[in-house]
Amino acid sequence: MKLLRYGPVGQEKPGLLDENGAIRDLSAKVSDIAGDALSDASLNRLRALDPNDLPVVEGAPRIGACVGQVGKFICIGLNYADHAAESGMALPEEPVIFFKATSAIMGPNDRVEIPRGSVKTDWEVELGVVIGKAAKYVTEAEALNHVAGYCVINDLSERDFQLHRSGQWVKGKSADTFGPIGPWLVTRDEVADPQNLPMYLEVNDHRYQDGSTKTMHFGVATVISHLSQFMSLQPGDVISTGTPPGVGMGQNPQTYLKAGDRMELGIEGLGIQRQDVGQA
Amino acid sequence: MKLLRYGPVGQEKPGLLDENGAIRDLSAKVSDIAGDALSDASLNRLRALDPNDLPVVEGAPRIGACVGQVGKFICIGLNYADHAAESGMALPEEPVIFFKATSAIMGPNDRVEIPRGSVKTDWEVELGVVIGKAAKYVTEAEALNHVAGYCVINDLSERDFQLHRSGQWVKGKSADTFGPIGPWLVTRDEVADPQNLPMYLEVNDHRYQDGSTKTMHFGVATVISHLSQFMSLQPGDVISTGTPPGVGMGQNPQTYLKAGDRMELGIEGLGIQRQDVGQA
Repeated sequence: MKLLRYGPVGQEKPGLLDENGAIRDLSAKVSDIAGDALSDASLNRLRALDPNDLPVVEGAPRIGACVGQVGKFICIGLNYADHAAESGMALPEEPVIFFKATSAIMGPNDRVEIPRGSVKTDWEVELGVVIGKAAKYVTEAEALNHVAGYCVINDLSERDFQLHRSGQWVKGKSADTFGPIGPWLVTRDEVADPQNLPMYLEVNDHRYQDGSTKTMHFGVATVISHLSQFMSLQPGDVISTGTPPGVGMGQNPQTYLKAGDRMELGIEGLGIQRQDVGQA
Repeated sequence: MKLLRYGPVGQEKPGLLDENGAIRDLSAKVSDIAGDALSDASLNRLRALDPNDLPVVEGAPRIGACVGQVGKFICIGLNYADHAAESGMALPEEPVIFFKATSAIMGPNDRVEIPRGSVKTDWEVELGVVIGKAAKYVTEAEALNHVAGYCVINDLSERDFQLHRSGQWVKGKSADTFGPIGPWLVTRDEVADPQNLPMYLEVNDHRYQDGSTKTMHFGVATVISHLSQFMSLQPGDVISTGTPPGVGMGQNPQTYLKAGDRMELGIEGLGIQRQDVGQA
């Protein structure tokens, strides 16, 4: 099942993508793709519906982030060996955790705005995990049962803010527009193996990132179990699981986003994001 | 005006503390002490009420965090020169920013639970700032106009998780119960000078922290302006502005919380928190 949210910023409605690629309105069935609506019971109720009975959404509305009311936007750093190498950092012994501001979240095709004073705004295609059931001190064996589904995330990063402005990466990860999420929340039953998903990111039609979740250092189950030792995970929390090689900081010479650029990124089965780049 | 939230966890109602220390129910006037209810217009409407016209809340209900639906729980690290020294860290050139998980938030007198595997759970009394009006690229001169009010926060920290578990402090700052906020949100008109507030923290009646916001390195206005360069601040966001000397890590020998301990902490005019310590 591919769930999504459509409509103007702040007024998104819940929807479902049918087999023909049309959006079906879920407003009469669930108030939002968020919180309790992400439980197994709720997703099973939605799955039991016949999409043909739901109203078709006409036209081409804006697509919002595929999950609403996100409580925590958690990221895993340096989680692909080759990306750690290109960043000049050692592969960590345990997952590196940091947060992005939830106010950075936007729709998958909304405009990215380079923050004022930035000279190193960079891209990172990442597999997003959306929590469906609260998790606290869960084992790796149980971990994937706490997942509602998966999505594409661009973990935009200002490298100078992240690394050279008095510590803690959050500074370079939290600008408005730095967190496109979606287009779809693909429920976990449709993702046979989250550790075998090809993924890519292009800027102005040049493919910079071309990887697979296969080379993820700490897999999704390990990440969820590990996180749950340090904080409780709640329905609607989003985990961005790290990026494969090919970020701008890893190019020779280093290459960063500028106004007028256009990004395209995708993960197999989870859809494609396209963002124009502007200036804040 | 002293605003608060009372009632069982997850079912808190908005309230106001009257001149006699009684809680008056605000449920008929505002749905929660959160989001839009924190705007100047909303606060002015509440201020215009006669507390004697509001229902008295009988008994001694549980007090919840004084602000609900917190979008971001932002902390400033090493923001008192003497605390940086006792932590063995240099005073930063710019404010150090990190996040706590919003799921760590609890009421001011709820039980603190030491996380599993912890050996270094520590305390930090801090001045909390609650945002009332969205802030993005604001100057220091404008910054305090974006504040709804102030409160007491205990920024509980697991030092081993924070400093020795593969980087990024969030790991030691985010356990459930690590963010008591309140008892009251004291509106900014009642805080003549946020940089002149005596504050203290005691464990088992021994006073470990005895400081004042006077020795804060980056003041509230500077912090808000600086943060707003890196992320937008939204109504209901909470900023914890750093702790004065006297944390457990700074004692000789180092001293950490254990089950059975009792903390008391307060800031002049903002109320007192009391927490029993247990084990998760």
